[in-house]
Amino acid sequence: MPKLKPEELESRRREIVDAARTCFLRAGFHKTTTDDICREASITPGGLYHYFRGKSQIITAVIELSALDIVDQIGGMTNKAEDAPAAFRAAGGFFLQLLANPEVDTQTRLDIEIWGEAIKDESVYETNRKAWAMRRGMMETILQRMYDEGMYEGQEMDVKGLASLFMATFIGMRICKLLWREDFDISGSLSSFFLAHSGRVALKLPDIPSLPVRQAV
Amino acid sequence: MPKLKPEELESRRREIVDAARTCFLRAGFHKTTTDDICREASITPGGLYHYFRGKSQIITAVIELSALDIVDQIGGMTNKAEDAPAAFRAAGGFFLQLLANPEVDTQTRLDIEIWGEAIKDESVYETNRKAWAMRRGMMETILQRMYDEGMYEGQEMDVKGLASLFMATFIGMRICKLLWREDFDISGSLSSFFLAHSGRVALKLPDIPSLPVRQAV
Repeated sequence: MPKLKPEELESRRREIVDAARTCFLRAGFHKTTTDDICREASITPGGLYHYFRGKSQIITAVIELSALDIVDQIGGMTNKAEDAPAAFRAAGGFFLQLLANPEVDTQTRLDIEIWGEAIKDESVYETNRKAWAMRRGMMETILQRMYDEGMYEGQEMDVKGLASLFMATFIGMRICKLLWREDFDISGSLSSFFLAHSGRVALKLPDIPSLPVRQAV
Repeated sequence: MPKLKPEELESRRREIVDAARTCFLRAGFHKTTTDDICREASITPGGLYHYFRGKSQIITAVIELSALDIVDQIGGMTNKAEDAPAAFRAAGGFFLQLLANPEVDTQTRLDIEIWGEAIKDESVYETNRKAWAMRRGMMETILQRMYDEGMYEGQEMDVKGLASLFMATFIGMRICKLLWREDFDISGSLSSFFLAHSGRVALKLPDIPSLPVRQAV
């Protein structure tokens, strides 16, 4: 193996992770072999082993890099936005385009496989948790800015809770889209989301039900 | 095998499905063998084969029965409710209790395994789709009643879209609860859900963004 400079090592590592991601999206995590990844990345098994000890380390890197990519993309757009409404339009548009892209189903398939690994393997679990914490942190930043710049009515606004709700809703929509196909009214559910969220459709609720849910510690 | 009357066959079948469900929840779908199910149901492999040809047929029955059970339970409560607010309290309380119950994580684990099967096996996919269509239909019935009895403000209310949104949100919350553990602000996200849904926290949105999403056909 030729001696590589640190930045060359890093860029080669990134190429391998991208190649692995391509393989996982194409054939699924379980059906992909390290040989497939080597072929896609044009690397020998010995070369691959220099970077990753096995599929579990590779999937960990894929999970991390996917989160970094999305946070970079949305963060880049919203940081550039000159005010909160522009940031909201940029981030909202991004999520809508993502849901409209048929490719999102391929990503959701892979996510379901990753979650299946996460409930069996604590290190995959931990990487997955951190990757979603990054996404949620970004969502909190956007919502905080929207709140600070007066885009919300309501003293009870809870930025962290709303960010958690948004992430859960988005994940749930992706699952329903994949698993119910034409049964899932995605346009209707997105419209309902915006209508309910902007108070244009509102439940006349005298009081918030008491929540018996406590956090696990 | 002794001759059984149709109702005895049906009740024996139900016992086997319950036993299988217990095994799947305890050890996961993949780790459970048909021998485990036979032991749990106190039946011989030959006896089991009389009812089910294999694990794939059993998981199909488990998916169907779980949906029927939940629709029976919620449908029973809401049908008994004398008005829409009572039906809403009954159904809402049921979902809150479900999310508060540590057992829900066990069910979500099994769901993730089922979804992993559904994306590989068209017959599991189809059963899963129908099972969620039943739940969503029940949600639509409740929301329609709430709308008819004047519990909603807003001419743009779309019962089907809102039911889809609710189901997606609920599924997403269950996933986040399992996969982010204490990182998921479940109380905050539930409060935010009720606050946003009742217009107490509202985004000042001049217009609903145009939705580029089209249904797959």
